[in-house]
Amino acid sequence: MRLRLTPRDTPFFDLLADSAANLVMGANLLAELLGADRQTRKAINKKLSLAEQVGDEATHTIMRRLNKTFVTPFDRDDIYNLASALDDCMDNMEEAGDLIVLYKLDELPARVSEQIQVLQRCAELTADAMPRLRSMSDLGEYWVEVNRLENQADKAHRKLLAQMFDEITDPIQLMKLKEVVEKLEDSVDAFEKVANTVETIAVKES
Amino acid sequence: MRLRLTPRDTPFFDLLADSAANLVMGANLLAELLGADRQTRKAINKKLSLAEQVGDEATHTIMRRLNKTFVTPFDRDDIYNLASALDDCMDNMEEAGDLIVLYKLDELPARVSEQIQVLQRCAELTADAMPRLRSMSDLGEYWVEVNRLENQADKAHRKLLAQMFDEITDPIQLMKLKEVVEKLEDSVDAFEKVANTVETIAVKES
Amino acid sequence: MRLRLTPRDTPFFDLLADSAANLVMGANLLAELLGADRQTRKAINKKLSLAEQVGDEATHTIMRRLNKTFVTPFDRDDIYNLASALDDCMDNMEEAGDLIVLYKLDELPARVSEQIQVLQRCAELTADAMPRLRSMSDLGEYWVEVNRLENQADKAHRKLLAQMFDEITDPIQLMKLKEVVEKLEDSVDAFEKVANTVETIAVKES
Repeated sequence: MRLRLTPRDTPFFDLLADSAANLVMGANLLAELLGADRQTRKAINKKLSLAEQVGDEATHTIMRRLNKTFVTPFDRDDIYNLASALDDCMDNMEEAGDLIVLYKLDELPARVSEQIQVLQRCAELTADAMPRLRSMSDLGEYWVEVNRLENQADKAHRKLLAQMFDEITDPIQLMKLKEVVEKLEDSVDAFEKVANTVETIAVKES
Repeated sequence: MRLRLTPRDTPFFDLLADSAANLVMGANLLAELLGADRQTRKAINKKLSLAEQVGDEATHTIMRRLNKTFVTPFDRDDIYNLASALDDCMDNMEEAGDLIVLYKLDELPARVSEQIQVLQRCAELTADAMPRLRSMSDLGEYWVEVNRLENQADKAHRKLLAQMFDEITDPIQLMKLKEVVEKLEDSVDAFEKVANTVETIAVKES
Repeated sequence: MRLRLTPRDTPFFDLLADSAANLVMGANLLAELLGADRQTRKAINKKLSLAEQVGDEATHTIMRRLNKTFVTPFDRDDIYNLASALDDCMDNMEEAGDLIVLYKLDELPARVSEQIQVLQRCAELTADAMPRLRSMSDLGEYWVEVNRLENQADKAHRKLLAQMFDEITDPIQLMKLKEVVEKLEDSVDAFEKVANTVETIAVKES
């Protein structure tokens, strides 16, 4: 156990929790977008784009404070990595939504909605865990569960790719769908990276 | 404001400025290559490849010095990140040029030349900013402008992709063009990463 | 030369060596998989998947110890980067093998076996070098050779891509093969990253 001379009452905890709460909104908008018709999708996509901008601003606020603060609640690099990883989750989800609209993908494989359900679950778990960074309590279940979800999603993703290659005969349609599906997989990976960063922090503090 | 006990007169500033100046040459060669016929392209591509090797050597010089120097003008990791990010700009531009030649892409969408113009502007801004790291003066405009350019390029890139998917009916041609266009987009992203690293350094020093 | 107050007798050296030895098995399984018929490939792919899980576990062990250990044999971040880079080598090789099986790629371009031979050589060099981290002796040849192999593989990779685009007329087949070939190229890049991290450590210690 290392010596703790660091403050527990800093704005970093609130800022990280805000950033994670924003991800729940992002994942829910993505689920809504998937279920909507082409016209409604455009409107939902705009909301998703706005949520991404809010996330960007939150990340910048954390980075600026981080660079100006001498004593941080845990390793400076870990806060930096955590804020970057949270930002990546939103960037990937927003790009997936944008591609669905840009490529006019009216029909998506059924398993895409499973990918998005995993993202919603990851976002909820993450938003739920962030406030517990302050007390460093009960974080183990969170990162174990996100790692489990990511492993499961990775296996499902590869099967989905193989299935798409078997069933879709139009190569251009296949290219479009593949890009969306991979962007969703990148989003799940980004949530896993958040969880791994939290684990790193928690182990150091234990 | 943190205490400054670090030297202002170190080779790192010159090395980083050299590395950035090399990027201007890289971006200009890429613009030249785009406007040339197939035979001339090969010759220009060789020059681009040489410029990339010069960049590699510069990066290695910075890394070796960094690992051997005890007191650095700013955080060791920040210099490392800056040198790596500058290197990534060149690697991506060189790969884009090489793909254009390898895939014998005689005709490229008009918007590709806009992408390359953005790269030229980013390279100039970066080469212009690097020498100002020494005094840490007037860097704000640089990173704000590069971030603005990257945002604009990202939007243009997505529209270009959607347009390509609408208009190009030969899937293999589409795959080739998509790869080039994405490599150019990666190049812009790499310039943004340079700017973000400079911002990090500047905020710490302010 | 920096002051050395760090222990030479820590479990980190053994753990990193184990992780690298596992890569030799991974690269050999990949070579075996390539030469096998479709049915045997499935069985070999399962072994490769198990080797990847063993690698994951080794990485987690290193990370946990790293976060709990106050004095490490060299920079904490360097050990972290080294363990991550070793893990990336295996992840990429396992994914390449899995794609070959999932996409039912009975025939692969002849140059793919050259890519895998490079991976086998990189894995051997890496496994051979890791135990020498303890004494920091004779590491230069290792990283120079891996960098040389990566440069050569990069050039061969681009030529292979151009050749595939010239010769394969079925775009869906081309997409599948391209993904495998790129995953193998990512594997070589991951080995180069390991070598670069070792160089960083060695230069600091010299």
